[in-house]
Amino acid sequence: MAEELVGNVLVGQSGGPTAVINASIAGVVAEALNHGEIEEIYGCLNGVLGILQEDLIDLASESQQTIRGLRFTPGAALGTCRYKLKKQADFERVLEVFKAHNIRYFFYAGGNDSQDTADKISKLAAEQGYELRVIGIPKTIDNDLPVTDHCPGYGSVIKYISTTVREIACDNEAMGQHDLVQIVEVMGRNAGWIAAGAALAKRRDHPHDPPHIILLPEVAFSPEKFIEDVQRVLKREKYCLVVVGEGLVDADGNYVAAEDKTDAFGHSQLGGAADYLQGLVNQYLPAIKARTVKLGMAQRAAVHAGSKADSDEAFLAGQAAVQAAIRGESDVMVTLLRGDADHYTCETGLAPLSDIANGVKKLPREWINEDGVSMNHQFVRYAQALIQGETPVPYENGLPAFVKLDKVRVDKQLPAYEI
Amino acid sequence: MAEELVGNVLVGQSGGPTAVINASIAGVVAEALNHGEIEEIYGCLNGVLGILQEDLIDLASESQQTIRGLRFTPGAALGTCRYKLKKQADFERVLEVFKAHNIRYFFYAGGNDSQDTADKISKLAAEQGYELRVIGIPKTIDNDLPVTDHCPGYGSVIKYISTTVREIACDNEAMGQHDLVQIVEVMGRNAGWIAAGAALAKRRDHPHDPPHIILLPEVAFSPEKFIEDVQRVLKREKYCLVVVGEGLVDADGNYVAAEDKTDAFGHSQLGGAADYLQGLVNQYLPAIKARTVKLGMAQRAAVHAGSKADSDEAFLAGQAAVQAAIRGESDVMVTLLRGDADHYTCETGLAPLSDIANGVKKLPREWINEDGVSMNHQFVRYAQALIQGETPVPYENGLPAFVKLDKVRVDKQLPAYEI
Repeated sequence: MAEELVGNVLVGQSGGPTAVINASIAGVVAEALNHGEIEEIYGCLNGVLGILQEDLIDLASESQQTIRGLRFTPGAALGTCRYKLKKQADFERVLEVFKAHNIRYFFYAGGNDSQDTADKISKLAAEQGYELRVIGIPKTIDNDLPVTDHCPGYGSVIKYISTTVREIACDNEAMGQHDLVQIVEVMGRNAGWIAAGAALAKRRDHPHDPPHIILLPEVAFSPEKFIEDVQRVLKREKYCLVVVGEGLVDADGNYVAAEDKTDAFGHSQLGGAADYLQGLVNQYLPAIKARTVKLGMAQRAAVHAGSKADSDEAFLAGQAAVQAAIRGESDVMVTLLRGDADHYTCETGLAPLSDIANGVKKLPREWINEDGVSMNHQFVRYAQALIQGETPVPYENGLPAFVKLDKVRVDKQLPAYEI
Repeated sequence: MAEELVGNVLVGQSGGPTAVINASIAGVVAEALNHGEIEEIYGCLNGVLGILQEDLIDLASESQQTIRGLRFTPGAALGTCRYKLKKQADFERVLEVFKAHNIRYFFYAGGNDSQDTADKISKLAAEQGYELRVIGIPKTIDNDLPVTDHCPGYGSVIKYISTTVREIACDNEAMGQHDLVQIVEVMGRNAGWIAAGAALAKRRDHPHDPPHIILLPEVAFSPEKFIEDVQRVLKREKYCLVVVGEGLVDADGNYVAAEDKTDAFGHSQLGGAADYLQGLVNQYLPAIKARTVKLGMAQRAAVHAGSKADSDEAFLAGQAAVQAAIRGESDVMVTLLRGDADHYTCETGLAPLSDIANGVKKLPREWINEDGVSMNHQFVRYAQALIQGETPVPYENGLPAFVKLDKVRVDKQLPAYEI
């Protein structure tokens, strides 16, 4: 057991929100209350920006009802940012703020960049001899953090997408004219983890169930093959359901579509991957109707269709972070470890922040079938476990009841800082 | 009490599917089993197409589990069509098929066009002295049928959209840079009922809650006013959430965007109303990021976020149709009647099919606030009751478990018919 370190907790969130990142914060707060050496529980608003600007709130003053409600509230209740600490002065300022508020435990929920930031803060504190325990909490719908078996946020996004695909399929099946291509665009700019998850919509032993075509950034896109694939499906099925990751690339590695791209005249070119595919169908198969669904930010916020396993693991990761810090661990991120048993089990582990910061977990090529547009049983086995159970979101008057933090500010101790 | 009419039931579905149209079929089947004068319970595949082609299935041979599962399965389990009976020969053929299978009870779930078809079949049977009872069952997410207080399908679509808006809002709020316009495109080509329903996402007494701007086909769109409205919201809020009905029109009554439109060179012009608005923001507010969500067909299939009130009423409408027919009613559609009490109650009534076929229920202009982009308390009071309760969809292995009909075919009695 490490020496007892008495002081305050600071917890923050970073990067894009997920359906369950707030559950991790709830886990941190719930666990922190169990440990006498933790005096105050603070949150920083909008990630590292809130540290630089000394925008801290008192999480212990929030009602228990609110902290419980965080488990079922999407978004990032503390606020988040994409600001990256760059200058040495930024890092110095972070430590200055930590010292001013006697922060001895720092928990940071985020993806690679955030874990990198946490790593650097941890190392600077060590250099300066300021005793600080820094624990990262994994968060990303993209599921691309190394070492950990999977990331909180991923299970919920693929459960929502598979649910949506299964529902749209019932609708498409009803028309039955063999002339409909339904295109569903999902997130995933650099990896196909999210699009691949749609494969769960297929019933076991029904390989011809939708989605009929999954287009992944891992497989170079060929318009000719796409049109052939669509035609083949439409011969067999009443409709062709396509799921496409937004980061689809051609043989040269260029995105086939990008929002905010401007043409030579400075006019914006609109449309994402689904619009691009719709255009191809219109052009090469004029008798076929192509329809699009773009889930956009709805998919990473859809706690109403979230995975209970995912939500519980996100909470667990928050608790485990506090327990690890109390044990004296630092400069590590909580990981999720899958048991070897046939029946899915998950416990937490720890990995050095630097291992997380510099790695990316790719979708294994051998989990993609040879046809390039479907996933094999190894992927399904991996992903199926992550969508089990339904997040018990509380409803009020017909809609999910989400909570907002009161955000009682902690008094500033330092002069303002220029960002 | 009418004279007992012994014979067979035929039930069909028509038009676009909804999250609850199958619940109405389940209601018909469940109720039909209670009445001794009903001998067989048939379904026609793909609406009137299935009648013309004598594609009938035996619904009584489906398992009770399947019929129960229909209450929670989106799409249209019998299949649907947009085919409209035109020629006199088509109508004659329908009666010929009815006679060949001793169909004495015909139940047809659909919108205006379908009720018109049912009306014509009913009148031809009367002319020919063939005893037939025809009852329409209301169905449409568009909520535009006259006489009935509301339509099965509407409550579920607006519950799903309001849920989605509330969730996206949590996500958008987290970034907090006052530079994001989030645009959510929903269905509704001719009326704003669906887009208006998004107003339910606002908490009571929080008029500044999202959606901040609702764009309805009932209010002529002005790009200048839109940009001003967006700027005003972004001064006050961290982001601006816009809900737009796909059928947005300009001052001349032309759609601002249309899929499948082709330009002068025959190239298809892609993009719907959300893409159009995104383009406006990019053009006039280049420092602002605009992001889109297009729910497309997902919204009318989203039983996982469906309204229990809606699902129960859809089932009730199916039961009421059978009860009315047994009582001797014909040439009427089941309507939903709202009680006068403060506490919402709903019972069924009947209205002549011809009244339904020729009318359209418009979104009352006086329910739209003077700003043209928000709904008043009268609308909220009307719509709130329709989203109460959560449809208890059964889950299996992490996903909604939907049923498919076995579709045991009824032997054809007649020569084939040329459509």
